[in-house]
Amino acid sequence: MYPNWILQRAYLTPLRSALTYEGQTWTFQELNELSMKRARQLTALGIKQKDRIAIMGPSTTGLVVMIYACMHLQCEMVMLNRRLSRSEIAYQLEDSEAVTVLVADEDAEKIPTNTLSYHLFSTVENSFEQVVDIAKEWTLTQTTSIMYTSGTTGFPKGVRQTVGNHQASATASVLNLGLQADDTWLCAVPLFHISGFSILVRSLLYGNKVQLYENFDADAIAQNIIEGAATYMSVVAVTLERILHALEQRNALASPQFKMLLAGGGPVPKDYLTRASALNLAVAQTYGMTETSSQTATLASEDAMQKIGSAGKPLFFNQIKISEPNAQGEGEICIRGPHVTPGYIGRFAQKSSTIEGWLHTGDIGYMDEDGYLFVVDRRADLIISGGENIYPAEIENVLLAHSAVQEAGVCGMDHPQWGQVPIAFVVLKEQISIELLHAFCQLKLAKYKVPKEIIVIDELPRNGANKLLRRKLVELLPSDI
Amino acid sequence: MYPNWILQRAYLTPLRSALTYEGQTWTFQELNELSMKRARQLTALGIKQKDRIAIMGPSTTGLVVMIYACMHLQCEMVMLNRRLSRSEIAYQLEDSEAVTVLVADEDAEKIPTNTLSYHLFSTVENSFEQVVDIAKEWTLTQTTSIMYTSGTTGFPKGVRQTVGNHQASATASVLNLGLQADDTWLCAVPLFHISGFSILVRSLLYGNKVQLYENFDADAIAQNIIEGAATYMSVVAVTLERILHALEQRNALASPQFKMLLAGGGPVPKDYLTRASALNLAVAQTYGMTETSSQTATLASEDAMQKIGSAGKPLFFNQIKISEPNAQGEGEICIRGPHVTPGYIGRFAQKSSTIEGWLHTGDIGYMDEDGYLFVVDRRADLIISGGENIYPAEIENVLLAHSAVQEAGVCGMDHPQWGQVPIAFVVLKEQISIELLHAFCQLKLAKYKVPKEIIVIDELPRNGANKLLRRKLVELLPSDI
Repeated sequence: MYPNWILQRAYLTPLRSALTYEGQTWTFQELNELSMKRARQLTALGIKQKDRIAIMGPSTTGLVVMIYACMHLQCEMVMLNRRLSRSEIAYQLEDSEAVTVLVADEDAEKIPTNTLSYHLFSTVENSFEQVVDIAKEWTLTQTTSIMYTSGTTGFPKGVRQTVGNHQASATASVLNLGLQADDTWLCAVPLFHISGFSILVRSLLYGNKVQLYENFDADAIAQNIIEGAATYMSVVAVTLERILHALEQRNALASPQFKMLLAGGGPVPKDYLTRASALNLAVAQTYGMTETSSQTATLASEDAMQKIGSAGKPLFFNQIKISEPNAQGEGEICIRGPHVTPGYIGRFAQKSSTIEGWLHTGDIGYMDEDGYLFVVDRRADLIISGGENIYPAEIENVLLAHSAVQEAGVCGMDHPQWGQVPIAFVVLKEQISIELLHAFCQLKLAKYKVPKEIIVIDELPRNGANKLLRRKLVELLPSDI
Repeated sequence: MYPNWILQRAYLTPLRSALTYEGQTWTFQELNELSMKRARQLTALGIKQKDRIAIMGPSTTGLVVMIYACMHLQCEMVMLNRRLSRSEIAYQLEDSEAVTVLVADEDAEKIPTNTLSYHLFSTVENSFEQVVDIAKEWTLTQTTSIMYTSGTTGFPKGVRQTVGNHQASATASVLNLGLQADDTWLCAVPLFHISGFSILVRSLLYGNKVQLYENFDADAIAQNIIEGAATYMSVVAVTLERILHALEQRNALASPQFKMLLAGGGPVPKDYLTRASALNLAVAQTYGMTETSSQTATLASEDAMQKIGSAGKPLFFNQIKISEPNAQGEGEICIRGPHVTPGYIGRFAQKSSTIEGWLHTGDIGYMDEDGYLFVVDRRADLIISGGENIYPAEIENVLLAHSAVQEAGVCGMDHPQWGQVPIAFVVLKEQISIELLHAFCQLKLAKYKVPKEIIVIDELPRNGANKLLRRKLVELLPSDI
């Protein structure tokens, strides 16, 4: 048995700062009291302990308190990505069988119209309270959060992250990065992604403060880094570049107080690392995913320049191996450790997440002679756009659902701002305008997944077994887009 | 599955310093290579993986390498206290059924004459090597170390400490104390006690250096602290006082680099804390025991003066409760968490270490209104002398084994140097000189357990149920010793 993180942290260091948002700061004691109250309000609204509930909202104190309230109730939280389309959300609500949705007032319109039960944050916050016996202890195997991620099939799977997964991730990270009581993590990544959610977990376990930003604001963040108000921050390549640009514009260096940018969600261009170095900004590249409850491997800052492109070595409790390596040592990256998800919910509940304890990521990589991991190719032709994962099959499935479309193939195209953007190729069975197809995609897909271009061709590249060769699509990209 | 700590650390940070002893330093890579070689030599001598073996030796690099070699072989290590008498060692060897003893050459004479199998360190170090497949993974439940500790009955029990216990202890400690890559732990406590052994575990998990001292050398340690060569050190009240004295003699302050003295093994006099504070020396009082794989609670340095006498709050993953408190809130201190031993070996293997998951320590204490633990009275009339635990019943059992002794009772007497020393009261059934009784005790008991005085009286204080009232013995102590 392990202690309820929120109660334990509020007991151990009640007066330490836990959260700063829009100039206001809350201590761990205050966040605990607010979230205990919110848990009683949720109880009054009929939510029971261990219920599976969905949550959606922007990154504000209100969302943090709602998440902590659900933790107090040991609810399994389906973290809804607010960028998703209504039909994508409908899929996740249906698949997860969440008993209700807790939704921030401003996101209310994103809830599918046929949703049976939902509560606005304001409804919860104004509800009366009902006494509930908050569990002081949690078990390692109980599910804390559920996040949907797609794969080769294009059907999003709900990935469980347990108390044990989150604890293992946070403790392994601290053995790599170190810890001081006054460390502060700047959070401008979504709380519904593991990158943001894991910042909350680390805050509770470490007793560190989170500086929360509702949106990524390059100027405010650059100022923060110059002043050394925070010590750590999680970024993706796109946001890293914006921070570098903002610092360069001001001709200012990062504060010596600032310790590290943790760069995940895909490769970081070498040029960014050089620019960061010139700005006195340490960057640690990491490799991780929803199924590994955030970081699996991290490249130490001191190795950043001599191991450019590497994702580093595994965190202490984790193991990485290359399965069936070819002559160059390249093969599928497999991961093992207490941070790896025990599996899925919904229609994939019976599917095992591991084979003999190893998570097969689908990513291709190798280990160099010093044991540093290099990721060569992303799983399932994964497109990473602004740190968001896009699975081609998911977009293809949408296009194929349209009556005019015979065949569809999607690939990523390099993009100066987003890293990559999705491009779709279609073979039509009847005439239709590209605009109509676009509108159809917008209805079904999150904005960042909607193809930047839809290109009509006569035939898709396929191999002898008639399997779509997505990498061949890249060669068909017109040079003028 | 968790990685083999030594292999993982040597993989992650091969070139970091792992150990300094007598001016020489070894990296993690070097310690790994030495201990892999030693494991092959042990294999050549017939030691098999997962064997239970006993180890005894002074705190030198040779002992550290031998311990790591046994870890590589996943042996269960019975850590023999080199201060014990031959008959005490014989008991532990017999009870543990260790297949062999690995003994430093200088400790060879301490091995009981009837010991069937033992190997001198020099024999192992000069042996040929035999190939062995070192396990890359360990399980949480495998036993790493076994340490004997007595209790109310006076019969020492072999306490298991598993991989999971040690990992939980080290990770919980780091969430309290923090961590930097160049932290260094000064180790001048015995490696056969959990206080010293846990320093090795932390070194492997944290990637920190250990500065090992064979003996406690107040002058050398004071110099170390003045220079800031180390950042942490574990002490007991007696050694703390000697360090304070040495610093005061030199009129020198602790270096700002030095972070914290961790003071365990019994209460620390308030006067010491005041003196430490004047020397710029932070002291964190801790409460822990063999059964909890070291610290369970630790008082933060910033609270040291306003919570004088408190052992602090539990480490993050641990829980403490007071069982059956009286009107003043005092009751038995009970502990729960992943650091608590799963149980014992040998004749106590069937005895459960916990009741519904809670370790009942036998110590009496209370929590103040802010949740700080205060230890009021030690378990089973425990005598703590120079940081070593002495159980009165163990000494009484020895005295009662003498044909001239009718009854025996032992209690602790305050002592300026050692904190406490044991004093024995005996009722004789035939005349015998105190010298002969003393000699008898010296034969059977570790030196620190031999009563400082043996006092003949007519009758021992007992209650109505004829139970010995050891606390009444204290009142019978003559004022002139």
